[in-house]
Amino acid sequence: MNKQHLLTGVSLATAVIAVAFACAKPKGPAGQLGASASVKELMDKRKLTEADVEAALRTYTPGGRADEYMILASGGQAGQILAIGAPSMRLLKVIGVFTPEPWQGYGYGGGGNEILAQGHQGDQKLGWADVHHPNLSETKGDYDGQFIFVNDKANARVAVVDLSDFATKQIVVNPLVSSDHGGAFVTPNTEYVIETSQYPAPLGRDYAPIEQYKEKYRGLAMFWKFDRAKGRIDQAASWAIELPPYTQDLADAGKLDSDGFAFLNSFNTEMAIGGTLEGKPPIESGASQNDMDYLHVIDWRKAEKLVADGKSTTIKGVKVISLETAANEGILHLIGEPKSPHGCDVTPDGKEIIVGGKLDTHATSYSFEKIKKLIDGKQYSGKDAYGVPTLDFQQSIKGQVEIGLGPLHTVFDNKGNAYTSVFIESAVAKWNYKDMKLLEKIPVHYNIGHILSAEGDTVSPDGNYVVAMNKMSIDRFSPVGPLYPQDFQLIDIEGPKMRLLVDMPIGIGEPHYSQMIKMDKLKTRKVYPVGENIYTGQKDPSATLAGQEKIVRSGTTVDVYMTAIRSHFTPDRIDVEEGDTINLHVTSLEQSEDQTHGLSFNLHNIDLSLEPGKHENVTFVASKAGVYPFYCTEFCSALHLEMAGYLLVRPKGTPPGSAAAAGSASAAPSGSAAPPAASGAAPKK
Amino acid sequence: MNKQHLLTGVSLATAVIAVAFACAKPKGPAGQLGASASVKELMDKRKLTEADVEAALRTYTPGGRADEYMILASGGQAGQILAIGAPSMRLLKVIGVFTPEPWQGYGYGGGGNEILAQGHQGDQKLGWADVHHPNLSETKGDYDGQFIFVNDKANARVAVVDLSDFATKQIVVNPLVSSDHGGAFVTPNTEYVIETSQYPAPLGRDYAPIEQYKEKYRGLAMFWKFDRAKGRIDQAASWAIELPPYTQDLADAGKLDSDGFAFLNSFNTEMAIGGTLEGKPPIESGASQNDMDYLHVIDWRKAEKLVADGKSTTIKGVKVISLETAANEGILHLIGEPKSPHGCDVTPDGKEIIVGGKLDTHATSYSFEKIKKLIDGKQYSGKDAYGVPTLDFQQSIKGQVEIGLGPLHTVFDNKGNAYTSVFIESAVAKWNYKDMKLLEKIPVHYNIGHILSAEGDTVSPDGNYVVAMNKMSIDRFSPVGPLYPQDFQLIDIEGPKMRLLVDMPIGIGEPHYSQMIKMDKLKTRKVYPVGENIYTGQKDPSATLAGQEKIVRSGTTVDVYMTAIRSHFTPDRIDVEEGDTINLHVTSLEQSEDQTHGLSFNLHNIDLSLEPGKHENVTFVASKAGVYPFYCTEFCSALHLEMAGYLLVRPKGTPPGSAAAAGSASAAPSGSAAPPAASGAAPKK
Repeated sequence: MNKQHLLTGVSLATAVIAVAFACAKPKGPAGQLGASASVKELMDKRKLTEADVEAALRTYTPGGRADEYMILASGGQAGQILAIGAPSMRLLKVIGVFTPEPWQGYGYGGGGNEILAQGHQGDQKLGWADVHHPNLSETKGDYDGQFIFVNDKANARVAVVDLSDFATKQIVVNPLVSSDHGGAFVTPNTEYVIETSQYPAPLGRDYAPIEQYKEKYRGLAMFWKFDRAKGRIDQAASWAIELPPYTQDLADAGKLDSDGFAFLNSFNTEMAIGGTLEGKPPIESGASQNDMDYLHVIDWRKAEKLVADGKSTTIKGVKVISLETAANEGILHLIGEPKSPHGCDVTPDGKEIIVGGKLDTHATSYSFEKIKKLIDGKQYSGKDAYGVPTLDFQQSIKGQVEIGLGPLHTVFDNKGNAYTSVFIESAVAKWNYKDMKLLEKIPVHYNIGHILSAEGDTVSPDGNYVVAMNKMSIDRFSPVGPLYPQDFQLIDIEGPKMRLLVDMPIGIGEPHYSQMIKMDKLKTRKVYPVGENIYTGQKDPSATLAGQEKIVRSGTTVDVYMTAIRSHFTPDRIDVEEGDTINLHVTSLEQSEDQTHGLSFNLHNIDLSLEPGKHENVTFVASKAGVYPFYCTEFCSALHLEMAGYLLVRPKGTPPGSAAAAGSASAAPSGSAAPPAASGAAPKK
Repeated sequence: MNKQHLLTGVSLATAVIAVAFACAKPKGPAGQLGASASVKELMDKRKLTEADVEAALRTYTPGGRADEYMILASGGQAGQILAIGAPSMRLLKVIGVFTPEPWQGYGYGGGGNEILAQGHQGDQKLGWADVHHPNLSETKGDYDGQFIFVNDKANARVAVVDLSDFATKQIVVNPLVSSDHGGAFVTPNTEYVIETSQYPAPLGRDYAPIEQYKEKYRGLAMFWKFDRAKGRIDQAASWAIELPPYTQDLADAGKLDSDGFAFLNSFNTEMAIGGTLEGKPPIESGASQNDMDYLHVIDWRKAEKLVADGKSTTIKGVKVISLETAANEGILHLIGEPKSPHGCDVTPDGKEIIVGGKLDTHATSYSFEKIKKLIDGKQYSGKDAYGVPTLDFQQSIKGQVEIGLGPLHTVFDNKGNAYTSVFIESAVAKWNYKDMKLLEKIPVHYNIGHILSAEGDTVSPDGNYVVAMNKMSIDRFSPVGPLYPQDFQLIDIEGPKMRLLVDMPIGIGEPHYSQMIKMDKLKTRKVYPVGENIYTGQKDPSATLAGQEKIVRSGTTVDVYMTAIRSHFTPDRIDVEEGDTINLHVTSLEQSEDQTHGLSFNLHNIDLSLEPGKHENVTFVASKAGVYPFYCTEFCSALHLEMAGYLLVRPKGTPPGSAAAAGSASAAPSGSAAPPAASGAAPKK
């Protein structure tokens, strides 16, 4: 497919390189490569254009140097967050969030199990998520680099990740709905993390037949209260607003002028319920009948006050402002949006809300000033079927710009320009939202979904990079079978023309949204103080120092207080009886940066990551007699392989060190006899 | 730390660029970047040296172009295999192998569950693995690009991945041991996949007290028979050899001259068993007393014949050649190796076996010709404690080369050179194994474990790239908290001097070994024929075509025959009663490349990936009344969000479409009444 854009930016680089060859022929035997290769020879050898050379030099980041930015990307179905360096576009870490992640020892016996368990729902253990929109914590509308939040569309959950150690600290479950999409979006000082539902259903997860869709099914906007001091969402202080069963989609929080408001769009205001097997039209066509859907405008400060004044009803433990109250108290207003809207993005100055319609060719800019005036003057165009006041579309918008077929999401630079992803056309459209003019389009490869820009959701975007998050990558990378990676394309927007720099394959989940933060805003920890429980942030009560190691047996419970340091575990033998419950408490005594140990108990599905100083607690039952090695799973030193020990599980009724029940099938050298059982392996009392 | 090596390779590139600036000053306003940047301006702006420029041009790979090579890397604790393009060093895909992988729908309800279940052990469901040594299938000692095998150190398992679709097709469990390490290594025509144990234990996983280590604990070499036609390991035709309890480590198969033999080394021939809590020395020191450990030389063709002749005993269903038989029949011989050996690598010509000692400063080359002569002449230096004949070290080796402190693994080029990873020194040593001379060393960053080279394990390595697989990356990348990524460093070995090209962070598991295959050897599938079950390779009996969709109810079992195509599911409503068992059969009707759908059932931990044509079957119980959306998890089209439906689970005893038990807590608009239940949603009979 068309790669012409790669050849834009033919430039002085051309001149320079050309001249170079004119006045200096590469010395040395022709075609000899290796250390004496000239730029020209390398261009020939690797078939690189001048644009490629420029792109290479704009993205290559030598080892030993930090990237300028970190992209924190949705991991999609992987259920994780991806940390990517830019402009090098290197994957730095896959952060375990909703899905167990063994390298981090997250969900394989240690404290991570408790975090994941927060996200389980009743007896339903959920081992994955559909992660959509990560949002960085903000202070005064600017990324502060402290936390990142993300939602799980498949199970209506939100997670909190601490960026001081890139570890997930909390998962909260929305008990009212069973899917979300418009989340996690933060307010300018991270007062709230906004999560809005996607597919309508009876609130509280009750049953109602689909024929009662209009009467019983609902949407919801959840406002999760964030306690920054604790670094956790305060569920008791969180609340929600009931919404009509218009499939709510993306959301964004107002800022500066529009601070205190939230905006979310919707599709399927037709309330189509499909019925493909029954010969009815599928939702995709049923939901595409009307010319207009509804932009929801929510005054969350007013709503917050209503909740404080007790004007809410409690459903499944959550304070909910009913749709009727929301409509009557003037905290919810609806405005028409071009059909099948998707993206909903507030401009850096907070004055405009940009919406793209999937089946439209325009980006529409709503004026917050106009909206506010209509609301304050109660100048309604009418009410919807649920009594919610509506505002006139034409009176609410600043204008529309025709940019191409299938506009989705919009991000911004520092010069008043907007960059909108155009899905069907596979392009990025650059346009100015001050004077509403389309400036430039470049093709991307292919089917771009979300788009992101450097510091793009803040009040002060940087204006140097945009990343196109493409859903398809056909013909862009080496083949890896029928399931293709996604394609992140880094685009330079610093110059007068957009320039594609590099393609990055994403072969782990399908990312949705991402954010891009200045690397120097991240203040990460290098080691933990010895004995820290990273999930409580406190020194663990069972933290074990050198010399304090012990095995304490009480009945069928065995408490093991263990330490790990290059290159051994103490104890390195754990002798128990079949059926015993083992409480393992292990502390890394290391304090050198990057000196991580791991701990695996073979055949017990236990795997811990022991970063310097970290403490972990694991409880498990030694359910089957046998000899189980445990060992360090991180190559920590020259004698790493020797950093091992044995869990010895005696058959029931067998005394320690006894061979009574030992039925080894091995062929022992004839004449060799078992020595008397030494007491050495007997657990200390 | 020392980054001097980055500045080697100052070169004609310098001259050319210098001259360039001499004869052509960049035009345009100084410092103006964007499209008119010169190479010099970019070098200044991004602080790049000439070496950096050269490295950038040697690695940058424009979108739309395939990489030259694919690296298939161990995913370490992630339990997966990583597919990486080289020289761009981009992660193309994380292949789900031992750990559930939701993007691929592997382990979340579909056929992948059955593959993962093959690896469960008794009632122990294992959700991760410690993946060590991937090995590509070979034909005549050359990679054929058909399959890759990998071992799980933590649970003694081996997996088979089909490279036509990058999907895991089989997991086999070794029932005799509870840890492995020397695997998976293939014989030159993939007759066998070799897996050797690591930490000794009673064979068959019986219990024996650790005081009986010498008498009852054993090592093992497993020879898994591979059926290439079926693309599966034939467990019934596989067999093993009992070994002494010398902690066996890495292994390699002979080739060409040494075809028919296998070589594995060992450490802790002292048979130290630790006892740190009991005041005994840890294994790391107990295992480092002797100057020599043992290289194991196995004549597997002879062993194969012994098994055929019935000279084996069966343990836990596996034919095992006892240690005594192995010793007496001359299929196992031992030779001393410098203390704490680690790597064991056969040269491309099959004539030499290179061993590195972790606490040694030498690489030792064993001569297969000398070994064979000693064996054939029964010229033994003695026997070990288990009656295994030993060969004299000096008479067995070709020689030793002093290369630095802590040599581990060795790979090869096409010029008779060996490249050995030097862990403690953090360096790669290049030496010639023909004339046994050290040629060059370069620093790597840091603590290099394994090393790999292009087509490096074949009879004909390519000699252009080496990758240093470093365990530590301190100061090399942007910080991501106390758990640091690993660092793959791509090194150009084509020229007279080694040159570091680029650092690639690995932030998902700690890779051990990897292999690097020519990209054009991989013949991958682009789509599946409609209805294919990718785990059987056959059209699924439940495959559903357009017009065949139906819901069949029989008692409390509901069979749903579903299709998926842009942008709807048929059916899009599934109406069942609480407690019903649902057998979902879903077929993707797509046949366009890269047109993948996903299918998630909210709150049911079900997630499928439906690549074009793929069929999946899922069985689950609708255990809780409620309304559960299901939807497409891959952004497949402009109306992707509309590709959804509802699983309606009625409370027990509620007839279809009835609102009797519907206790919706939502505030419906007053006066709205539920319409009579339509029969539309009633399942078809």
